[in-house]
Amino acid sequence: MIQQTEITLPPFRRGYHLITGFIEKNLPALPEKGLLHILVKHTSAGITINENADPTVRTDFEAFINKMIPEKDPVYVHTYEGDDDMPAHLKSSVFGAEITIPITNHRLNLGTWQGIYFVEFRNYGGSRKIVLTVFS
Amino acid sequence: MIQQTEITLPPFRRGYHLITGFIEKNLPALPEKGLLHILVKHTSAGITINENADPTVRTDFEAFINKMIPEKDPVYVHTYEGDDDMPAHLKSSVFGAEITIPITNHRLNLGTWQGIYFVEFRNYGGSRKIVLTVFS
Amino acid sequence: MIQQTEITLPPFRRGYHLITGFIEKNLPALPEKGLLHILVKHTSAGITINENADPTVRTDFEAFINKMIPEKDPVYVHTYEGDDDMPAHLKSSVFGAEITIPITNHRLNLGTWQGIYFVEFRNYGGSRKIVLTVFS
Repeated sequence: MIQQTEITLPPFRRGYHLITGFIEKNLPALPEKGLLHILVKHTSAGITINENADPTVRTDFEAFINKMIPEKDPVYVHTYEGDDDMPAHLKSSVFGAEITIPITNHRLNLGTWQGIYFVEFRNYGGSRKIVLTVFS
Repeated sequence: MIQQTEITLPPFRRGYHLITGFIEKNLPALPEKGLLHILVKHTSAGITINENADPTVRTDFEAFINKMIPEKDPVYVHTYEGDDDMPAHLKSSVFGAEITIPITNHRLNLGTWQGIYFVEFRNYGGSRKIVLTVFS
Repeated sequence: MIQQTEITLPPFRRGYHLITGFIEKNLPALPEKGLLHILVKHTSAGITINENADPTVRTDFEAFINKMIPEKDPVYVHTYEGDDDMPAHLKSSVFGAEITIPITNHRLNLGTWQGIYFVEFRNYGGSRKIVLTVFS
């Protein structure tokens, strides 16, 4: 069986945001076994799995990745959408815009310390859409 | 139901190439709901989702990622396949060699600005094989 | 049909380790067509597909990525779990903690030169758990 829904995230400021609870609230009753696929329908945002506890992990992500993929790099030609735009595209492909998570015993089967990060790479990204697909 | 096919891409020059239309032409009639999985069967190429409009995004990708993961880094030991080989392996794992895309209403459910990039990391990669799996 | 199992990897030293054979030994008899999904249940380890032949590819990965995402970067605030911890979280999201691989003719349908790398980003990561889900 396939259950699919498209939802809109609340606008998030630039950075790494734990959305595991938000995702769970928007899912149907989960099957005993299966997979959840999540697609972020944007090219300047991303989704990844990482540490769900200490918020400094998320702020360190923002600080370090801004150095690894900086704004105003002299090679950028695609600059007319703002200094934050081309780095946002690069980061979106480095992190990825989609993930798959196993479902076991009617719950997302993540590790104890794993959570789902939605990542807003733009300064003012606005509302973002995601597609949730549950396979069982 | 599972439908699976293996196809060969035309040879692409080094860089980031929009292949959404090519993929769609090689898919069977899509189900109402489902998932499409794509694997690139090579370790010096990749696949990712990114902006489908301005070609400068794709040339900026090539220019910036060549700086982030350069040729001739002094740490490389694996150099006998050419200066472009070890960076190609690194880039393949940073971008990934496989993606999953939701299918909704018999179509790939990507965002308005999203397209599928095939990425050729070698100077002369030749023909590349991909596996398409449609789940419904 | 969905078959799912959770297994524990033997402890690996920091670095990139080819585990294709180990995964195959822990799978049920594979269907004619399908998909295998693998999740690493940790935020300081990863999984990726790359070259399965020359071991210098794996040691070059370790050497180069340690430069790209170094320890002791001055921006890190999350330092109390050790110098190797915050870089491990960053690397885990850059490489990813989950992959999907097509199954064709009862076998994993990887390219000739492709293997599955488990990546241990911590100095002493210990035993790590993965979830294997076979869809057919």
